[in-house]
Amino acid sequence: MNEHISDAVIRRLPGYYRHLRELEKEGITQISSTELGELMGQTPSLVRQDINCVGGFGRQGYGYDVSRLKNGIGEMLGLNRKHCMIILGSGSIGSAVARYPSFAKEGFETIGMFDIDPARIGCTVANICIEPLDHLEAFCSSHVVDIAVLAVPAEAALETAERVAACGVNAIWNFAPVDLKLEAKHVEIVNVHLSDTLQVLSYKMEHPQT
Amino acid sequence: MNEHISDAVIRRLPGYYRHLRELEKEGITQISSTELGELMGQTPSLVRQDINCVGGFGRQGYGYDVSRLKNGIGEMLGLNRKHCMIILGSGSIGSAVARYPSFAKEGFETIGMFDIDPARIGCTVANICIEPLDHLEAFCSSHVVDIAVLAVPAEAALETAERVAACGVNAIWNFAPVDLKLEAKHVEIVNVHLSDTLQVLSYKMEHPQT
Repeated sequence: MNEHISDAVIRRLPGYYRHLRELEKEGITQISSTELGELMGQTPSLVRQDINCVGGFGRQGYGYDVSRLKNGIGEMLGLNRKHCMIILGSGSIGSAVARYPSFAKEGFETIGMFDIDPARIGCTVANICIEPLDHLEAFCSSHVVDIAVLAVPAEAALETAERVAACGVNAIWNFAPVDLKLEAKHVEIVNVHLSDTLQVLSYKMEHPQT
Repeated sequence: MNEHISDAVIRRLPGYYRHLRELEKEGITQISSTELGELMGQTPSLVRQDINCVGGFGRQGYGYDVSRLKNGIGEMLGLNRKHCMIILGSGSIGSAVARYPSFAKEGFETIGMFDIDPARIGCTVANICIEPLDHLEAFCSSHVVDIAVLAVPAEAALETAERVAACGVNAIWNFAPVDLKLEAKHVEIVNVHLSDTLQVLSYKMEHPQT
Protein backbone atom coordinates (compact mmCIF):
# COMPACT_ATOMS: atom_id res chain seq x y z
CA MET A 1 0.00 0.00 0.00
CA ASN A 2 1.24 3.46 -0.91
CA GLU A 3 1.79 5.43 2.29
CA HIS A 4 1.68 8.77 0.47
CA ILE A 5 -1.80 8.92 -0.91
CA SER A 6 -2.54 12.19 -2.68
CA ASP A 7 -5.22 14.57 -1.43
CA ALA A 8 -7.20 14.01 -4.63
CA VAL A 9 -7.42 10.27 -3.94
CA ILE A 10 -8.25 10.84 -0.25
CA ARG A 11 -11.11 13.14 -1.24
CA ARG A 12 -12.57 10.41 -3.47
CA LEU A 13 -12.46 7.70 -0.77
CA PRO A 14 -15.72 8.74 0.96
CA GLY A 15 -17.50 8.50 -2.41
CA TYR A 16 -16.18 4.98 -3.00
CA TYR A 17 -17.21 4.02 0.52
CA ARG A 18 -20.71 5.41 0.00
CA HIS A 19 -21.27 3.58 -3.29
CA LEU A 20 -19.81 0.31 -2.00
CA ARG A 21 -22.06 0.47 1.07
CA GLU A 22 -25.09 0.90 -1.22
CA LEU A 23 -23.96 -2.02 -3.41
CA GLU A 24 -23.47 -4.21 -0.35
CA LYS A 25 -26.98 -3.31 0.85
CA GLU A 26 -28.33 -4.33 -2.56
CA GLY A 27 -26.65 -7.71 -2.15
CA ILE A 28 -24.04 -7.14 -4.88
CA THR A 29 -20.79 -8.95 -4.04
CA GLN A 30 -18.48 -8.23 -7.00
CA ILE A 31 -17.96 -5.08 -9.07
CA SER A 32 -15.73 -4.18 -12.00
CA SER A 33 -13.71 -0.97 -12.27
CA THR A 34 -15.96 0.01 -15.20
CA GLU A 35 -19.15 -0.29 -13.13
CA LEU A 36 -17.60 1.45 -10.13
CA GLY A 37 -16.30 4.16 -12.46
CA GLU A 38 -19.81 4.77 -13.77
CA LEU A 39 -21.16 5.21 -10.24
CA MET A 40 -18.28 7.56 -9.35
CA GLY A 41 -18.35 9.49 -12.63
CA GLN A 42 -14.69 8.52 -13.21
CA THR A 43 -12.82 6.48 -15.80
CA PRO A 44 -12.21 2.76 -15.05
CA SER A 45 -8.49 3.48 -15.28
CA LEU A 46 -8.67 6.12 -12.53
CA VAL A 47 -10.70 3.73 -10.37
CA ARG A 48 -8.00 1.06 -10.76
CA GLN A 49 -5.29 3.59 -9.90
CA ASP A 50 -7.18 4.79 -6.83
CA ILE A 51 -7.81 1.27 -5.56
CA ASN A 52 -4.20 0.29 -6.17
CA CYS A 53 -3.24 3.25 -3.98
CA VAL A 54 -5.36 1.96 -1.10
CA GLY A 55 -4.07 -1.59 -1.30
CA GLY A 56 -5.52 -3.45 -4.27
CA PHE A 57 -8.50 -5.57 -3.17
CA GLY A 58 -8.88 -7.19 -6.61
CA ARG A 59 -7.35 -9.18 -9.41
CA GLN A 60 -7.21 -8.18 -13.07
CA GLY A 61 -10.36 -9.46 -14.78
CA TYR A 62 -12.09 -10.52 -11.57
CA GLY A 63 -13.31 -7.15 -10.32
CA TYR A 64 -13.44 -6.21 -6.68
CA ASP A 65 -15.03 -7.93 -3.71
CA VAL A 66 -17.56 -5.27 -2.63
CA SER A 67 -17.54 -5.99 1.13
CA ARG A 68 -13.78 -6.37 1.39
CA LEU A 69 -13.15 -3.14 -0.51
CA LYS A 70 -15.83 -1.29 1.49
CA ASN A 71 -14.39 -2.48 4.79
CA GLY A 72 -10.83 -1.70 3.70
CA ILE A 73 -11.69 1.85 2.69
CA GLY A 74 -13.85 2.29 5.78
CA GLU A 75 -10.93 1.30 7.98
CA MET A 76 -8.62 3.75 6.18
CA LEU A 77 -11.21 6.47 6.80
CA GLY A 78 -11.29 5.56 10.49
CA LEU A 79 -14.97 4.61 10.26
CA ASN A 80 -14.40 1.46 12.34
CA ARG A 81 -14.12 3.52 15.49
CA LYS A 82 -16.19 6.10 17.33
CA HIS A 83 -15.31 9.82 17.18
CA CYS A 84 -16.55 12.26 19.80
CA MET A 85 -17.29 15.74 18.50
CA ILE A 86 -17.99 19.09 20.07
CA ILE A 87 -19.65 21.93 18.19
CA LEU A 88 -18.51 25.52 18.67
CA GLY A 89 -21.33 27.88 17.75
CA SER A 90 -24.99 26.93 17.94
CA GLY A 91 -26.29 28.99 15.00
CA SER A 92 -27.80 27.56 11.83
CA ILE A 93 -24.74 25.60 10.71
CA GLY A 94 -23.84 24.30 14.18
CA SER A 95 -27.43 23.22 14.78
CA ALA A 96 -27.67 21.58 11.34
CA VAL A 97 -24.54 19.54 12.09
CA ALA A 98 -25.91 18.54 15.52
CA ARG A 99 -29.20 17.43 13.94
CA TYR A 100 -27.74 15.71 10.86
CA PRO A 101 -28.79 12.11 11.42
CA SER A 102 -26.12 10.24 9.47
CA PHE A 103 -23.07 11.50 11.38
CA ALA A 104 -24.00 9.59 14.53
CA LYS A 105 -24.82 6.52 12.43
CA GLU A 106 -21.30 6.68 10.99
CA GLY A 107 -19.77 6.88 14.47
CA PHE A 108 -19.37 10.66 14.75
CA GLU A 109 -21.19 11.51 17.93
CA THR A 110 -21.77 15.04 19.17
CA ILE A 111 -21.16 15.18 22.92
CA GLY A 112 -21.11 18.92 23.58
CA MET A 113 -22.10 22.27 22.11
CA PHE A 114 -20.85 25.72 23.09
CA ASP A 115 -21.84 29.31 22.43
CA ILE A 116 -21.16 32.79 23.76
CA ASP A 117 -24.71 34.11 23.33
CA PRO A 118 -26.41 34.15 26.78
CA ALA A 119 -29.80 33.77 25.06
CA ARG A 120 -28.76 30.38 23.63
CA ILE A 121 -26.94 28.94 26.63
CA GLY A 122 -29.10 26.34 28.34
CA CYS A 123 -31.14 25.69 25.18
CA THR A 124 -31.17 22.18 23.76
CA VAL A 125 -30.32 21.17 20.20
CA ALA A 126 -30.69 17.50 19.24
CA ASN A 127 -30.74 16.58 22.97
CA ILE A 128 -27.51 18.47 23.65
CA CYS A 129 -27.56 21.34 26.12
CA ILE A 130 -25.68 24.42 24.87
CA GLU A 131 -22.97 25.39 27.37
CA PRO A 132 -21.12 28.69 27.72
CA LEU A 133 -17.81 28.77 25.82
CA ASP A 134 -16.11 29.40 29.17
CA HIS A 135 -16.81 25.77 30.05
CA LEU A 136 -14.77 24.52 27.05
CA GLU A 137 -11.50 23.91 28.91
CA ALA A 138 -13.18 22.06 31.80
CA PHE A 139 -15.25 19.99 29.37
CA CYS A 140 -12.19 18.98 27.35
CA SER A 141 -10.28 17.91 30.43
CA SER A 142 -13.12 15.67 31.59
CA HIS A 143 -14.10 14.21 28.16
CA VAL A 144 -12.24 12.68 25.26
CA VAL A 145 -12.86 15.06 22.35
CA ASP A 146 -11.67 13.88 18.93
CA ILE A 147 -13.08 16.57 16.66
CA ALA A 148 -14.14 20.18 17.12
CA VAL A 149 -16.70 21.48 14.65
CA LEU A 150 -16.15 25.18 14.12
CA ALA A 151 -19.43 26.91 13.30
CA VAL A 152 -18.56 30.43 14.46
CA PRO A 153 -18.39 33.66 12.43
CA ALA A 154 -15.27 34.17 10.27
CA GLU A 155 -13.82 36.79 12.62
CA ALA A 156 -13.96 34.42 15.63
CA ALA A 157 -12.62 31.37 13.78
CA LEU A 158 -8.88 31.66 14.39
CA GLU A 159 -9.17 32.53 18.08
CA THR A 160 -11.66 29.71 18.69
CA ALA A 161 -9.51 27.23 16.77
CA GLU A 162 -6.43 28.14 18.80
CA ARG A 163 -8.40 27.75 22.02
CA VAL A 164 -9.67 24.35 20.95
CA ALA A 165 -6.15 23.26 19.94
CA ALA A 166 -4.83 24.40 23.32
CA CYS A 167 -7.40 22.06 24.90
CA GLY A 168 -5.68 19.15 23.13
CA VAL A 169 -8.25 18.62 20.38
CA ASN A 170 -6.36 17.35 17.32
CA ALA A 171 -8.90 17.78 14.54
CA ILE A 172 -11.01 20.72 13.42
CA TRP A 173 -13.87 20.54 10.93
CA ASN A 174 -14.19 24.19 10.00
CA PHE A 175 -17.40 25.70 8.60
CA ALA A 176 -16.38 29.32 9.21
CA PRO A 177 -15.81 30.87 5.77
CA VAL A 178 -12.02 31.23 6.12
CA ASP A 179 -9.12 28.97 5.18
CA LEU A 180 -7.97 28.17 8.67
CA LYS A 181 -4.30 27.40 9.28
CA LEU A 182 -2.79 26.92 12.72
CA GLU A 183 0.77 27.11 14.00
CA ALA A 184 0.11 23.91 15.95
CA LYS A 185 1.17 21.26 13.44
CA HIS A 186 -0.50 18.39 15.31
CA VAL A 187 -3.97 19.74 14.52
CA GLU A 188 -5.60 18.40 11.37
CA ILE A 189 -7.98 20.87 9.76
CA VAL A 190 -10.51 20.42 7.01
CA ASN A 191 -12.06 23.66 5.79
CA VAL A 192 -15.58 23.30 4.39
CA HIS A 193 -16.60 26.03 1.98
CA LEU A 194 -20.29 25.57 1.26
CA SER A 195 -20.10 28.22 -1.45
CA ASP A 196 -17.57 26.21 -3.44
CA THR A 197 -20.01 23.53 -4.54
CA LEU A 198 -22.61 26.20 -5.32
CA GLN A 199 -20.05 27.92 -7.55
CA VAL A 200 -19.26 24.59 -9.25
CA LEU A 201 -22.98 24.29 -10.00
CA SER A 202 -23.01 27.83 -11.31
CA TYR A 203 -20.00 26.98 -13.54
CA LYS A 204 -21.89 24.00 -14.94
CA MET A 205 -24.91 26.18 -15.70
CA GLU A 206 -22.67 28.60 -17.60
CA HIS A 207 -20.95 25.77 -19.50
CA PRO A 208 -23.55 23.06 -20.12
CA GLN A 209 -22.12 19.89 -21.62
CA THR A 210 -23.66 19.30 -25.00
CA MET B 1 -8.91 28.55 -23.60
CA ASN B 2 -9.52 24.83 -23.24
CA GLU B 3 -13.25 24.19 -23.64
CA HIS B 4 -13.04 20.81 -21.91
CA ILE B 5 -11.93 21.67 -18.42
CA SER B 6 -11.75 18.64 -16.15
CA ASP B 7 -13.95 18.31 -13.08
CA ALA B 8 -10.86 18.39 -10.85
CA VAL B 9 -9.88 21.82 -12.22
CA ILE B 10 -13.46 23.12 -12.00
CA ARG B 11 -13.62 22.08 -8.34
CA ARG B 12 -10.47 24.10 -7.62
CA LEU B 13 -11.74 27.30 -9.29
CA PRO B 14 -13.82 28.50 -6.30
CA GLY B 15 -10.70 28.18 -4.11
CA TYR B 16 -8.64 30.27 -6.52
CA TYR B 17 -11.42 32.84 -6.65
CA ARG B 18 -11.61 33.01 -2.87
CA HIS B 19 -7.87 33.49 -2.40
CA LEU B 20 -7.60 36.03 -5.22
CA ARG B 21 -10.47 38.03 -3.75
CA GLU B 22 -8.66 38.11 -0.39
CA LEU B 23 -5.41 39.18 -2.09
CA GLU B 24 -7.22 41.94 -3.98
CA LYS B 25 -8.76 43.17 -0.70
CA GLU B 26 -5.27 43.29 0.81
CA GLY B 27 -4.18 45.48 -2.09
CA ILE B 28 -1.89 42.87 -3.69
CA THR B 29 -1.81 43.28 -7.47
CA GLN B 30 0.60 40.57 -8.69
CA ILE B 31 1.13 36.99 -7.55
CA SER B 32 3.43 34.16 -8.63
CA SER B 33 2.34 30.57 -9.16
CA THR B 34 4.53 29.63 -6.16
CA GLU B 35 2.73 32.02 -3.82
CA LEU B 36 -0.70 31.07 -5.16
CA GLY B 37 0.25 27.39 -4.84
CA GLU B 38 1.12 27.92 -1.17
CA LEU B 39 -2.28 29.49 -0.50
CA MET B 40 -4.04 26.66 -2.37
CA GLY B 41 -1.92 23.86 -0.92
CA GLN B 42 -0.89 22.87 -4.48
CA THR B 43 2.36 22.76 -6.42
CA PRO B 44 3.30 25.81 -8.54
CA SER B 45 3.25 23.54 -11.57
CA LEU B 46 -0.37 22.49 -10.96
CA VAL B 47 -1.33 26.15 -10.46
CA ARG B 48 0.23 27.02 -13.84
CA GLN B 49 -1.58 24.12 -15.51
CA ASP B 50 -4.92 25.11 -13.96
CA ILE B 51 -4.55 28.74 -14.97
CA ASN B 52 -3.51 27.75 -18.49
CA CYS B 53 -6.74 25.77 -18.67
CA VAL B 54 -8.83 28.81 -17.82
CA GLY B 55 -7.12 31.09 -20.30
CA GLY B 56 -3.66 32.12 -19.14
CA PHE B 57 -3.78 35.55 -17.46
CA GLY B 58 0.01 35.72 -17.03
CA ARG B 59 3.43 35.64 -18.63
CA GLN B 60 6.29 33.38 -17.61
CA GLY B 61 8.31 35.16 -14.92
CA TYR B 62 5.83 37.98 -14.41
CA GLY B 63 3.24 36.21 -12.27
CA TYR B 64 -0.47 36.87 -12.54
CA ASP B 65 -2.44 40.08 -12.34
CA VAL B 66 -4.61 39.41 -9.26
CA SER B 67 -7.68 41.41 -10.31
CA ARG B 68 -7.68 40.20 -13.90
CA LEU B 69 -7.34 36.57 -12.84
CA LYS B 70 -9.99 36.96 -10.13
CA ASN B 71 -12.44 38.57 -12.54
CA GLY B 72 -11.73 36.00 -15.24
CA ILE B 73 -12.34 33.06 -12.90
CA GLY B 74 -15.37 34.82 -11.38
CA GLU B 75 -16.87 35.20 -14.85
CA MET B 76 -16.26 31.52 -15.65
CA LEU B 77 -18.03 30.64 -12.40
CA GLY B 78 -20.97 32.83 -13.43
CA LEU B 79 -20.44 35.10 -10.41
CA ASN B 80 -20.95 38.21 -12.51
CA ARG B 81 -24.68 37.60 -12.64
CA LYS B 82 -27.50 37.07 -10.14
CA HIS B 83 -28.93 33.59 -9.49
CA CYS B 84 -32.37 33.13 -7.96
CA MET B 85 -32.69 30.09 -5.70
CA ILE B 86 -35.58 28.24 -4.11
CA ILE B 87 -35.12 25.91 -1.15
CA LEU B 88 -37.08 22.66 -0.92
CA GLY B 89 -37.30 21.57 2.71
CA SER B 90 -37.15 24.00 5.62
CA GLY B 91 -35.40 21.77 8.17
CA SER B 92 -31.94 22.36 9.61
CA ILE B 93 -30.04 22.26 6.34
CA GLY B 94 -32.60 24.24 4.33
CA SER B 95 -32.75 26.89 7.04
CA ALA B 96 -28.95 27.03 7.32
CA VAL B 97 -28.68 27.65 3.56
CA ALA B 98 -31.38 30.34 3.74
CA ARG B 99 -29.55 32.08 6.60
CA TYR B 100 -25.99 31.70 5.25
CA PRO B 101 -24.98 35.32 4.72
CA SER B 102 -22.37 34.95 1.97
CA PHE B 103 -24.57 33.34 -0.68
CA ALA B 104 -26.61 36.50 -1.20
CA LYS B 105 -23.41 38.57 -1.20
CA GLU B 106 -22.12 36.38 -4.03
CA GLY B 107 -25.31 36.88 -6.05
CA PHE B 108 -27.18 33.72 -5.03
CA GLU B 109 -30.46 35.02 -3.69
CA THR B 110 -33.10 32.83 -2.06
CA ILE B 111 -36.54 33.89 -3.32
CA GLY B 112 -38.72 31.03 -2.06
CA MET B 113 -38.86 28.17 0.40
CA PHE B 114 -41.21 25.18 0.38
CA ASP B 115 -42.17 22.41 2.79
CA ILE B 116 -44.84 19.77 3.22
CA ASP B 117 -45.09 20.06 7.02
CA PRO B 118 -48.25 22.06 7.88
CA ALA B 119 -46.60 23.17 11.13
CA ARG B 120 -43.84 24.96 9.20
CA ILE B 121 -45.90 26.50 6.40
CA GLY B 122 -46.35 30.21 7.03
CA CYS B 123 -43.28 30.40 9.26
CA THR B 124 -40.50 32.76 8.23
CA VAL B 125 -36.82 31.88 7.79
CA ALA B 126 -34.41 34.67 6.90
CA ASN B 127 -37.37 36.86 5.87
CA ILE B 128 -38.74 34.19 3.54
CA CYS B 129 -42.18 32.79 4.18
CA ILE B 130 -42.35 28.99 3.89
CA GLU B 131 -44.97 27.97 1.33
CA PRO B 132 -46.66 24.61 0.83
CA LEU B 133 -44.91 22.41 -1.74
CA ASP B 134 -48.18 22.43 -3.72
CA HIS B 135 -47.42 26.05 -4.64
CA LEU B 136 -44.15 25.04 -6.36
CA GLU B 137 -45.51 24.86 -9.91
CA ALA B 138 -47.35 28.17 -9.68
CA PHE B 139 -44.30 29.84 -8.10
CA CYS B 140 -41.99 28.59 -10.86
CA SER B 141 -44.28 29.82 -13.60
CA SER B 142 -44.42 33.32 -12.12
CA HIS B 143 -40.72 33.63 -11.10
CA VAL B 144 -37.40 32.99 -12.79
CA VAL B 145 -35.80 30.22 -10.74
CA ASP B 146 -32.19 29.37 -11.59
CA ILE B 147 -31.32 26.91 -8.84
CA ALA B 148 -33.30 24.57 -6.58
CA VAL B 149 -31.66 23.68 -3.28
CA LEU B 150 -32.77 20.20 -2.27
CA ALA B 151 -32.85 19.88 1.52
CA VAL B 152 -35.37 17.07 1.84
CA PRO B 153 -34.92 13.57 3.32
CA ALA B 154 -33.14 11.00 1.13
CA GLU B 155 -36.34 9.12 0.34
CA ALA B 156 -38.05 12.26 -1.02
CA ALA B 157 -35.05 13.48 -3.03
CA LEU B 158 -35.66 11.88 -6.43
CA GLU B 159 -39.36 12.68 -6.57
CA THR B 160 -38.76 16.30 -5.51
CA ALA B 161 -35.91 16.67 -8.02
CA GLU B 162 -38.08 15.38 -10.87
CA ARG B 163 -40.87 17.75 -9.87
CA VAL B 164 -38.46 20.70 -9.80
CA ALA B 165 -37.01 19.69 -13.19
CA ALA B 166 -40.54 19.46 -14.64
CA CYS B 167 -41.02 23.09 -13.53
CA GLY B 168 -38.13 24.07 -15.82
CA VAL B 169 -35.46 24.56 -13.16
CA ASN B 170 -32.12 23.63 -14.74
CA ALA B 171 -29.85 23.32 -11.72
CA ILE B 172 -30.13 21.39 -8.47
CA TRP B 173 -27.85 21.81 -5.45
CA ASN B 174 -28.60 18.60 -3.60
CA PHE B 175 -28.04 18.23 0.16
CA ALA B 176 -30.11 15.03 0.50
CA PRO B 177 -27.66 12.21 1.26
CA VAL B 178 -28.05 10.44 -2.09
CA ASP B 179 -26.20 10.70 -5.40
CA LEU B 180 -28.98 12.17 -7.43
CA LYS B 181 -29.15 11.46 -11.16
CA LEU B 182 -32.01 12.51 -13.39
CA GLU B 183 -33.18 11.32 -16.79
CA ALA B 184 -33.58 14.96 -17.80
CA LYS B 185 -30.15 15.72 -19.26
CA HIS B 186 -30.65 19.49 -19.22
CA VAL B 187 -30.57 19.59 -15.42
CA GLU B 188 -27.16 20.19 -13.84
CA ILE B 189 -26.83 18.58 -10.41
CA VAL B 190 -24.19 18.99 -7.75
CA ASN B 191 -24.52 16.53 -4.88
CA VAL B 192 -23.16 17.80 -1.57
CA HIS B 193 -22.19 15.10 0.88
CA LEU B 194 -21.40 16.78 4.18
CA SER B 195 -20.09 13.49 5.56
CA ASP B 196 -17.39 13.30 2.90
CA THR B 197 -15.29 16.13 4.32
CA LEU B 198 -15.79 14.75 7.83
CA GLN B 199 -14.44 11.40 6.63
CA VAL B 200 -11.48 13.15 4.99
CA LEU B 201 -10.74 14.71 8.37
CA SER B 202 -11.07 11.32 10.02
CA TYR B 203 -8.64 9.87 7.43
CA LYS B 204 -6.13 12.60 8.26
CA MET B 205 -6.44 11.82 11.98
CA GLU B 206 -5.71 8.15 11.26
CA HIS B 207 -2.76 9.01 9.00
CA PRO B 208 -1.09 12.12 10.44
CA GLN B 209 1.63 13.54 8.21
CA THR B 210 4.91 13.46 10.05
